[in-house]
Amino acid sequence: MSETDMKLVVVGAAGRMGQTLIRIVHGMAGVCLHAAVERPGSPFIGRDAGELAGLGPIDVAIADKPLEAFVEAEGVLDFTSPAATVEFAGLAAQARIVHVIGTTGCSADDDAKIRAAARHARVIKSGNMSLGVNLLGVLTEQAARALKAADWDIEILEMHHKHKVDAPSGTALLLGEAAAKGRGIELADHSVRVRDGHTGARPEGAIGFATLRGGSVVGEHSVILAGEGEQVTLSHSATDRSIFARGAVTAALWGRSQKPGFYSMLDVLGLN
Amino acid sequence: MSETDMKLVVVGAAGRMGQTLIRIVHGMAGVCLHAAVERPGSPFIGRDAGELAGLGPIDVAIADKPLEAFVEAEGVLDFTSPAATVEFAGLAAQARIVHVIGTTGCSADDDAKIRAAARHARVIKSGNMSLGVNLLGVLTEQAARALKAADWDIEILEMHHKHKVDAPSGTALLLGEAAAKGRGIELADHSVRVRDGHTGARPEGAIGFATLRGGSVVGEHSVILAGEGEQVTLSHSATDRSIFARGAVTAALWGRSQKPGFYSMLDVLGLN
Amino acid sequence: MSETDMKLVVVGAAGRMGQTLIRIVHGMAGVCLHAAVERPGSPFIGRDAGELAGLGPIDVAIADKPLEAFVEAEGVLDFTSPAATVEFAGLAAQARIVHVIGTTGCSADDDAKIRAAARHARVIKSGNMSLGVNLLGVLTEQAARALKAADWDIEILEMHHKHKVDAPSGTALLLGEAAAKGRGIELADHSVRVRDGHTGARPEGAIGFATLRGGSVVGEHSVILAGEGEQVTLSHSATDRSIFARGAVTAALWGRSQKPGFYSMLDVLGLN
Amino acid sequence: MSETDMKLVVVGAAGRMGQTLIRIVHGMAGVCLHAAVERPGSPFIGRDAGELAGLGPIDVAIADKPLEAFVEAEGVLDFTSPAATVEFAGLAAQARIVHVIGTTGCSADDDAKIRAAARHARVIKSGNMSLGVNLLGVLTEQAARALKAADWDIEILEMHHKHKVDAPSGTALLLGEAAAKGRGIELADHSVRVRDGHTGARPEGAIGFATLRGGSVVGEHSVILAGEGEQVTLSHSATDRSIFARGAVTAALWGRSQKPGFYSMLDVLGLN
Repeated sequence: MSETDMKLVVVGAAGRMGQTLIRIVHGMAGVCLHAAVERPGSPFIGRDAGELAGLGPIDVAIADKPLEAFVEAEGVLDFTSPAATVEFAGLAAQARIVHVIGTTGCSADDDAKIRAAARHARVIKSGNMSLGVNLLGVLTEQAARALKAADWDIEILEMHHKHKVDAPSGTALLLGEAAAKGRGIELADHSVRVRDGHTGARPEGAIGFATLRGGSVVGEHSVILAGEGEQVTLSHSATDRSIFARGAVTAALWGRSQKPGFYSMLDVLGLN
Repeated sequence: MSETDMKLVVVGAAGRMGQTLIRIVHGMAGVCLHAAVERPGSPFIGRDAGELAGLGPIDVAIADKPLEAFVEAEGVLDFTSPAATVEFAGLAAQARIVHVIGTTGCSADDDAKIRAAARHARVIKSGNMSLGVNLLGVLTEQAARALKAADWDIEILEMHHKHKVDAPSGTALLLGEAAAKGRGIELADHSVRVRDGHTGARPEGAIGFATLRGGSVVGEHSVILAGEGEQVTLSHSATDRSIFARGAVTAALWGRSQKPGFYSMLDVLGLN
Repeated sequence: MSETDMKLVVVGAAGRMGQTLIRIVHGMAGVCLHAAVERPGSPFIGRDAGELAGLGPIDVAIADKPLEAFVEAEGVLDFTSPAATVEFAGLAAQARIVHVIGTTGCSADDDAKIRAAARHARVIKSGNMSLGVNLLGVLTEQAARALKAADWDIEILEMHHKHKVDAPSGTALLLGEAAAKGRGIELADHSVRVRDGHTGARPEGAIGFATLRGGSVVGEHSVILAGEGEQVTLSHSATDRSIFARGAVTAALWGRSQKPGFYSMLDVLGLN
Repeated sequence: MSETDMKLVVVGAAGRMGQTLIRIVHGMAGVCLHAAVERPGSPFIGRDAGELAGLGPIDVAIADKPLEAFVEAEGVLDFTSPAATVEFAGLAAQARIVHVIGTTGCSADDDAKIRAAARHARVIKSGNMSLGVNLLGVLTEQAARALKAADWDIEILEMHHKHKVDAPSGTALLLGEAAAKGRGIELADHSVRVRDGHTGARPEGAIGFATLRGGSVVGEHSVILAGEGEQVTLSHSATDRSIFARGAVTAALWGRSQKPGFYSMLDVLGLN
């Protein structure tokens, strides 16, 4: 830890993602864990955050007063629930710090409140905090725009572990949306999600999906653009669930030097 | 062409596969085109085989008398129809030459007649003449036997050009059969051919299929065995339809030094 | 052929690339072969361009007067030599048509003359006419800019057929330059082209190259950006040398509706 | 834990691999941790093995008397040092249990002593305990034997994390040896380990190596057999270092029902 390390607070500190955030903040250069917060009444209040996260003691006790934690900090990492996130956004605005939000499921009303807080806080919010996946989405949209539907067919392939219960993955659909946006079409009107038996020839402009399941694969996605005699493939492979925590820390470090406002991972990547 | 080149006859010489065979025989070392045969009455009788195949004249006129062609030859390459193939097998037996058969759709009765001819001819018959695909089938069976179903999930992925009208490909199903044989199960009872929406977790022992379509892809197949923390992938990629003709020539050269009998591509590969 | 097909001239018509261009123009929708030109004195003058290209007769005789060919045409496809290309650029300017230039090795002086011609002609010039490779270069630059050197390592992998005599390929180096540009560094100062024996740990900011050779591979290139727990891979695979001819035709069709000027394939892709 | 679980001892319990073994034995079905052993004088004697391995207490104290641990156990997992392994082999023979040895660097003399112990113990010894890598080696040898050098070029590609200090990896060389064995040649006489600048055409029969480094990649290996118009690729990807511990447990479970003897992972895979 050095004087110039960015002081971060982890909220939802006792949850699975909270523990991962604590481990990653502890291990990454340029940041340090200033505080770890749980909701009042949690059985974990007062316990050492490092011990809980499997690091051994790090002298940060889990607390239940977020504002106290925020005022001396520079940023907060938040993968909690919509209601908690809205509250934290207000406190982050008071403290004028960076608020990185990976929480999903926010309503339009929640989002409006978070955007209001972003007049004073620097909010970075994204449904997927992986730098690689966010980049892949941008590149997919560009490739789909540049390579015309008459000559180039788009296919999206994903593989996940054997326990996953739905298909295609949310990220595969996100990539499909990016491709459809690049083509100026609606994904719902052009997606082909099943091929079995007599399918007929591939419809021009279709966006095809294929799904593999097996082993312990964390997540692999490929966008294939197949033309006559050549093929472009854009892929992302995740081997560790901690990439979302790493992305959140990267976002916090980026946010440190920004003006108050509402940002996404595309801003962090310099792609907006 | 040298004295020791193996003299080959192409039957069905005016068809698409016949023309490919003529080009490949003309271009490969160790073999030469002795004759090219079409059925009596074909409008191509008497035309130069090389000209027809886009090579320019090669001084081999297309003929309609197979036995005459066979007696001075050492082998015949045959991707015609079951009825024609049964007849050619009889003539190859008379001439005691190598008969490479890529013809598909033979009945049990046809096969019995071909096997009878194999008492005097050296017959090599396979539904797929690609060396690589045949090897992949053998390796798939072994891998599926060695890596147990409780810990390793098998998935089969294929990609073909946008004009293909059915799924999965015949080769994908052949690889699925090889995997099922290695596991000692019936493919029909364990194959998963569609995944869309809420699928539930992957059933233990399932053999999954996924299909991609696009561009001008000749044929790509992968067999994935996915375990906890590791993955084995066995793949074949074809970039040229001539591989079936090349495989047939390789089979003929192999057959030249064998005893009369009925063989498959696995014998050619030394894997039986 | 239809009334609205774009009328194209192929120069250098008897060469290997000229013949490929003739076949592709003949086969693609929206264009037709208006004329085929060789240098005066060529033994091919007067011969049918289709016959020469292996298509059978198409009623276009190879001519030796480019200006005559250009005045009634809408575009010219040119993969010849710098001297010839400079001359054709002047004629294309007179005829006010599209001039697609795939010629390599032009000097600064040649380029200045071509740019002068581009005041009246619509010139599209690129060292590599493949749409896919040009797109890959742009995406590589963006990815290298977005994903910082401290956390993401860039590797470039290429595979070509067994006859290729140098390494890495020109396209691999072009992709390396794109990555270096995105990172704001000089490729020469950061490229690692050999790894064997005790290499030490990977230097931060290095751009590594690896080369595979085998079989008949036309060209495969991958740009890998490897981070902690995740990886982004951008790939291009060519299975047919005709992609350069196809790219040239696509460029001509795009140029048809542009103002006079000097363009690259990035303009054709809408990426400039 | 159930009555029929195989009782295993982990030796070298406080080391990095020992801790991984403790976690995997604890987590896998069909086995349980009977004892954990360190050398006399280790500061860890008496500490709870689970706590040390980050599992929380599991009521197994680290002990320093291996024979006491072995007599009531059914197997021992050993990734220690040659001297320790030779001693453990003698004790495993006395106890007539399974001895799984992942220790590397044993001399011919060490191996002779271990083989002597294998008259009473069931010893399974391998330089790489991953099931997948061992399978890949066997398949590589077969493929190299079946596909002739005149027509098929062999390339071996590997990728590892940015901290790896040597190239090619030991596993890449092991796969090269397997390919050379299949071809009936010496690897040293045919390996091509560097390609840069003017290389000339690929020599027939060469076995090429290419190395990628980046990110946190645990280990990826591909054996490519590239022919005219087709390619076979055999790959292994490791995403978790625990695969070696998993392989050791799988070997122990297999050994439980074998006669005393000296075995390798190929026996476990049923491939010998």
